[in-house]
Formats: sequence, C-alpha cells, structure tokens
Amino acid sequence: MKLNCDLGESFGNWQMGQDIQVMPFIDQANIACGFHAGDPMVMLDTLKLAKANNVSIGAHPSYPDLVGFGRRSMNCSADEIKAFMLYQIAAIDGMASSLGLNLEYVKPHGALYNDMMKDLKVRQAILLAIQQYPKKLKLMMQSTVNFETHKQQATEFDIELLAEVFADRCYCDDGSLMPRSELNAVHNQTKILEQVKQLIETGTLTTNNNKTLTLQADSLCVHGDNPESIAMIQTIRDLIKRG
Amino acid sequence: MKLNCDLGESFGNWQMGQDIQVMPFIDQANIACGFHAGDPMVMLDTLKLAKANNVSIGAHPSYPDLVGFGRRSMNCSADEIKAFMLYQIAAIDGMASSLGLNLEYVKPHGALYNDMMKDLKVRQAILLAIQQYPKKLKLMMQSTVNFETHKQQATEFDIELLAEVFADRCYCDDGSLMPRSELNAVHNQTKILEQVKQLIETGTLTTNNNKTLTLQADSLCVHGDNPESIAMIQTIRDLIKRG
Amino acid sequence: MKLNCDLGESFGNWQMGQDIQVMPFIDQANIACGFHAGDPMVMLDTLKLAKANNVSIGAHPSYPDLVGFGRRSMNCSADEIKAFMLYQIAAIDGMASSLGLNLEYVKPHGALYNDMMKDLKVRQAILLAIQQYPKKLKLMMQSTVNFETHKQQATEFDIELLAEVFADRCYCDDGSLMPRSELNAVHNQTKILEQVKQLIETGTLTTNNNKTLTLQADSLCVHGDNPESIAMIQTIRDLIKRG
Amino acid sequence: MKLNCDLGESFGNWQMGQDIQVMPFIDQANIACGFHAGDPMVMLDTLKLAKANNVSIGAHPSYPDLVGFGRRSMNCSADEIKAFMLYQIAAIDGMASSLGLNLEYVKPHGALYNDMMKDLKVRQAILLAIQQYPKKLKLMMQSTVNFETHKQQATEFDIELLAEVFADRCYCDDGSLMPRSELNAVHNQTKILEQVKQLIETGTLTTNNNKTLTLQADSLCVHGDNPESIAMIQTIRDLIKRG
Repeated sequence: MKLNCDLGESFGNWQMGQDIQVMPFIDQANIACGFHAGDPMVMLDTLKLAKANNVSIGAHPSYPDLVGFGRRSMNCSADEIKAFMLYQIAAIDGMASSLGLNLEYVKPHGALYNDMMKDLKVRQAILLAIQQYPKKLKLMMQSTVNFETHKQQATEFDIELLAEVFADRCYCDDGSLMPRSELNAVHNQTKILEQVKQLIETGTLTTNNNKTLTLQADSLCVHGDNPESIAMIQTIRDLIKRG
Repeated sequence: MKLNCDLGESFGNWQMGQDIQVMPFIDQANIACGFHAGDPMVMLDTLKLAKANNVSIGAHPSYPDLVGFGRRSMNCSADEIKAFMLYQIAAIDGMASSLGLNLEYVKPHGALYNDMMKDLKVRQAILLAIQQYPKKLKLMMQSTVNFETHKQQATEFDIELLAEVFADRCYCDDGSLMPRSELNAVHNQTKILEQVKQLIETGTLTTNNNKTLTLQADSLCVHGDNPESIAMIQTIRDLIKRG
Repeated sequence: MKLNCDLGESFGNWQMGQDIQVMPFIDQANIACGFHAGDPMVMLDTLKLAKANNVSIGAHPSYPDLVGFGRRSMNCSADEIKAFMLYQIAAIDGMASSLGLNLEYVKPHGALYNDMMKDLKVRQAILLAIQQYPKKLKLMMQSTVNFETHKQQATEFDIELLAEVFADRCYCDDGSLMPRSELNAVHNQTKILEQVKQLIETGTLTTNNNKTLTLQADSLCVHGDNPESIAMIQTIRDLIKRG
Repeated sequence: MKLNCDLGESFGNWQMGQDIQVMPFIDQANIACGFHAGDPMVMLDTLKLAKANNVSIGAHPSYPDLVGFGRRSMNCSADEIKAFMLYQIAAIDGMASSLGLNLEYVKPHGALYNDMMKDLKVRQAILLAIQQYPKKLKLMMQSTVNFETHKQQATEFDIELLAEVFADRCYCDDGSLMPRSELNAVHNQTKILEQVKQLIETGTLTTNNNKTLTLQADSLCVHGDNPESIAMIQTIRDLIKRG
C-alpha cells in the first residue's frame, strides 16, 4: 500500500501545505495543474521536489474554479470535462518531462473527484480524456464496494485503476465516506492509526455500523498541512514498512 | 515562404476570427494556449481543424492577461516567463498529441513577442523554456537586421529560428515595424501585394524611406478576421505558388 | 409592459451583441458585472450608451464562470452567493453613479437565474443580498404560476419583484419554459409576434398544450444579437406602443 | 500620525496575513478589492472586522493580476486604469455601505502604487477615477520631496492627499525608498523604532546618507504577517500615544 498526498496547492503569493516536509514520506504526489491551485512556478517547484525525493507524480486536475478551490460541483458537459482534463494533464506532463520526470497517473480533485464517483457521465468523460492522452496513465479512484464495476468500466477504455482509501475518514457500510457534516466523520489520531493498521494487516475497514468491509487499497490518501499531520504520516509510513 | 496565422483566439462563448475559412489557405497555425485566448474546448477544435487541413501547428503562448488579450507588457521575471511558457507549450503539445498531431514551433503572442524582440532577458527566458522542453521545437521570431545575432543566440540554446515577416506592415530602415500610431504604418491591399511580390521575387522589402532591405523570410504572417482579409490570403497564396 | 435585454456582454477584445443597435429600442438594460462577461471598460461603455438612450439599468450578476459564460450551475453556499451578488451589484452601481445614473433593479444571469427559480436557498440568498444593499433595488424574476408565492417571499425581504416573460420561448402549462432541447421550444418570428400580441391584448399566453395561461408581465425579455432580432425588437416596440 | 495596514489579502481557500490580530492596533485598513487578492467573502469578513474594531477603511485597488499579486507593472492605458479603479472602488464601497460603513480613502496596491509615484499618466488616471466617483474619497500617496507638487496635482481634481511614510524602509535623500535589492533597504526592529520615534518627535527621517529629511507623515504603513510584526505594531502604537 502506497501513500499519496495532494501537493503543489499554493498559488502565486499564497502558500498552502507543507510540501517540503511531506514529500520525503510519501510515494505519490498528486500535483495541482492550475485550475484549482498551482500556477506554473508552483508546478515546477513541486515537480522538482518530487524528483529530489524520488516520488511518483500524478496529475491532480480540477473544475476551473480557483476561488472555490475546485470544491464546488459545476454542471459541465462531458466534452468540457474531457477538454479541461486533457489540458491539465498535458500541462503537468510536459512540465514533468522537461525535468526528466514521468507522469504516472491522474487523480481528479475535489468536486470533480466526487462527481466522478457519483455520476457515470463524468466518470466516462474522465476515462475518455485519459484514453485519448497519448501516454498510458492510470486513474486513481476511490475504493468502494463498486470498485470491480469501476474497474470493468475503466478496462473498456484500456485504463488501469488505482484503488484509493482514506486514512482519516469513517466509512459507511457501502464503502462510501460518512459526510463531513456528521459526527465522527473524520477520525482522530488514535482512530486513524487503528484504521491503517487494520487495512495493512487484514485489508479491511470497520464501518460506522461496526461492519467489516473488505476494500482494495492500492494507495492511502494522507494530508500534510501541519506538524501533527506530518508526524502522523511518518507513523503511518513506519506501520506500512513493518506491515 | 510559408504563411502563418494566429488562430484559436475564441474564448468560451466569444467567437474571434474566421478559423474555418482561413485554415485551408495557410501552412502554419499559431494556436492560443489559454493565457490570452483559447480555452481547452477551443484549443481542441482548432487542432482538429488544423489536422483536417494538414496545417503545421505552433504554440502561441502569452502573458497571463485574458482581459488585455496579451497585448499589455507585464514586468515578469525570467523564471516566471520560463514557467508560463513551459505550461502553455506543454498544454497545447499534449492536446495535439492526443489527436495524433505534432507541435512544430513556438511563436510568442502580442506583448510577449514584442518584449522578446526588445529585451534580451525575455528572449533568453523564452529560449530557455523551449530548450528545456523535451520535444525539439523551433522559435518563430521577427526577421530584422539583427536576425543573424538572434540566430546565434538561439544556437546557444540549440534552437532553430523561423524568420517571420509581416505582409501588411511598413518597415523602417533597421527592419523594425513602423509603429501603428504613425501614418501609413499598415499597408492597404495594393501595398500588401506589392510587398509580398517583392519578397517572393527578390527577398527584399522597401522601407518607409525607400531603402531596399534584405530580410530572411521563412514565413509570412497573415490575418483572417473578415472576408476581405481571407480573399487577400488566397491572393497571396497564389502569388507564392507562382513565385 | 417594458422591454429588457442582456447587454454589455463583450469582454476585453471579444465583442458580443449589437448593443449600439439594440439600446434605442429597449426600456431596461441588464448589464453584465464582470463575472460571466463585461470587464470594467465594457461596463462603462454600456452605462454611457444606456444614459445616452435614457434606458433604465439593472445589474446582471452571475456565478463566477467566465469561460462558461455563467451558464453552468455551480454548487455555491448561500453565503458565497450573497457575497458575490453584493460585489457585482456594488461594482455596477458605483460605476453607474459615477456617470450620474441610478441602478434600479437586479436580474441574475444564466444558471444563477435558473437556480433562483428552482431552489429556495438560492432565491433567499439573492433576496438577502439585495436587502442588505443600501440602495432600494427591485428583483426581476421569471413570471410563473408561482409568482404570487415568490412575491410574498420577496416582501419578507422588503423587495419588489418585476415579472419577466420571454417573447421567444414556448411555455408549459405550469408557466415554466419548455426546455431548449425539445422541439418548438423556441418560437419562430411569427410565433413570437403572436405571443407578444396576445400578452399585450389579454395578459395571457398559449402553452404548448394549447392552454391559456395568465401571467403577470412587467417586462418582456428580448435578444439583439443580429439584424433580424433587432428588427424584431422594433416590431415588438411598435406593437406595445399601439397596444 | 495614523497607522495603516494592507488587509483582506486572503483569497478563497488561501489565508494571508493575521488580520484578526492586526486590526485592533491600526487606524486605517487598506482592503483588497478582488484584483490582486480578496474575493467577495474575504472582503465582507474584512469589512466586518474593521467595523468591530472601529477602523477607517480604504480601497486597495490593483492591476488585474491575481497570480502576480498585483506586483508586476502592466502597461495599461489611462482609460483602462480609470475603469478598473472605478470598478474596484465601487465594489468595496458598496459592500462597506451594506454593513453601514463609510469608505474614506483609496490606496493603490503594489505595482500600481509604484507606477502612480513614477508616472504622471498613471497618477492622473487614478486621480480622475477618484474624482469621477460620486463619493468624496482621499488618495493615500507616498510622501516624498515632491509631495507638494503631488498635492497641487490632486487639488486640480479636487482630491485631498494622505501622506504615507514607511516604518521599515530606508529612505534616499530625495525621499524615495532604497530598492529592496540593496543592503539595509529594509530596517531591522531597532532601526524601525528609531525611525518612528524621530518621525513622531521631529517630523523628520534620517536617510541612507545620514541626511535629515522632513516629510509630511499623515499615516505610517505597517505590516502584520507574523507575531513579531504584530508586536512591533503594538510598540509603535504606544510610541504614537505617548508622542
């Protein structure tokens, strides 16, 4: 199980995240492509940092919504989604290549990620964009009880999926995440470590109803916004090594 | 001598130019990359149109200034210029590749083009961006009496230049363009055809002081905003064929 | 019954609409405020044109979506909607005041208008913004069979509504518009004139099911993108005068 | 002598500055208007904070350059500058009015401020915008040896100037600031307090050449990005009270 983290989310003069502190402890960096965060200078800096730490890189494309940080669903057509996916993937891929790096996967950001999980039309537009892109890229998608169905859909586009699980989120019985608005939707540190341990040892999660859920877990999403979260990533890193 | 034209300069709901009418008559399409014009949908459409007409494609990157259409000089650092050049080149190149097209050259747009001609710092930042980009691309630059110097500078970055001349602009003795603010700076149709004929037949231009100027002319810039200008492109096309 | 039209929808170098031709024939200009169209230069020009033609002016605020022309619904919070409404209303109002003009009403644009009609949360956020704005402004809203309910809701915010009907759209029995995707959703010229005549003479419309619908009609929305539509506005203008 | 500070420079999800900590210690808040920072939500929050602390508010308009934080000079026409000044002033003024606040002055931001000091054309465009705005507003401008000339220019537009001095910058003999690129251009804490004391007690500054310079000082610009700078503001606040 790999560790992935959203990085390169600064913009112009605005700093976000602790990319320098986080990068040494993760395997996969999801790098913003300019539509929700990440201007060209930030993108180059983040790519160099990934290179120095030998971290795999993925495109982290978004709806075009800078002020909303890509967190607001937008009612875009399939053609629009395909086009802005291609634009963002191409931008980060070409910049990565200019540094001798190889883009490996795509993980949609924020509202686009959520819409991909809920809406077949969005999912197909994303798959189509990745298929049409000349370089073979994987798609990182949330691991749910429907992951096999999603895998089949991706296979039709000749795309390999990476199953993503969340370290800090409480799961429902159907493998979806408890909405953040609900109590205990986001785990405290003890619960995070319990969830990760269980994932490593048994490949399962315990849901909000105490049900045991088996989920494919190719990559674990972690966050690195403050010293506590970075310490947590290190602890998880150690757990995986020992696992 | 080839014909190049700035295309793909629509944006969202706003139409600009007569791309469909122009494309059949040109050799090289300079395609906007989203910073002064050209959203991802427009870029894909323009690339498809270039493909259908077997036209060579170039990136047409700009300062980040949508409302100013990239026509206002911005005091950017060399690093900023390098970064936004790489971003835009990568975006259009990847999208072109997704359609089986091959990006061949770069022609900076508007104020960035002018600043490249005037300012060594800007020129070097542009050359550096193109050098660092993994695909070998040419740089289209205005042909002046300094073209040999510019060529030497480009050679240091291992970049080949394309010398561009303007069909409709009156030249000064030093090979610069008369400022648009001055009388007779922009030729009428008769003058345009005279200038093009002379270029084809003798490789020279007649300046505003009636001096004869020899300029390398790899490509002639034409405009296609209205029926008259498109008719003019066709006439020029015929002149070149016969030449 | 007044005539209103969306104007000032150019942006930077991109022209849209025939504002100069349309302005003399309308009563109310809905002026874009920079979020879907209309940069500050365009806004000033449009306001001056309204002043010269003695036309009432309204703010035409939108979701922040330039490339989508404000036509894509965005999942914004009530606080976000209130804030960007206030910003856009303030911008156009202050610019109007600088020319000695008085802003009179607000008509949300595109997807924001549609969401206002469908979603009580959006409607209330819009009403709240207008209420909090220091100048008393009316809200232009689509006239439907629910107009009395909407009026009551607006009264709670101490806001007067202007009932808007559409000249060129076919209505359903419930007073909603037939979706553009359906056959005959948009009237031809003959049908437009029939619908306007009936509105003037009887205050009613004939629906797609041949039902007669009584709708309050304070203002009729017209479009002026081409010579035909401008001729149509003049004809409607004459009908109203005679009516 | 008052204290002014640039505030409201967050944008969307990106935080900047310590507005809540700074606001209690200043007299005048220069509030970003959306062009270099400050979206509508941030603007409302900043205005509310100013109101709660009884702080005077000024518009802090900028060139339209979000990614460059308004720090890059842009070659705009006088008409463009006038239009985007009016837009931004109107936006913040109307939002302030919606909270019962009264906008009192304008302080251009970053590169626009610098260009105003250097370029008569820019200065006049700014003065014209403020003159055309219906509410009487003062203009905050850097105090130099040319301040009387600037005052005379402003008087022609019927505008009152506020003379601004900088607490932390070393001055040249002509009253300009030493470029940040030079050694000792930015004072350390000891030097800042010395400069402020001298200003309070004698109305003079000591230049980099040890010359004594008399400068009008209506307002002192302070920064509040971190705990140290906020402590410094409090110390300056105390000095002024005692002075």
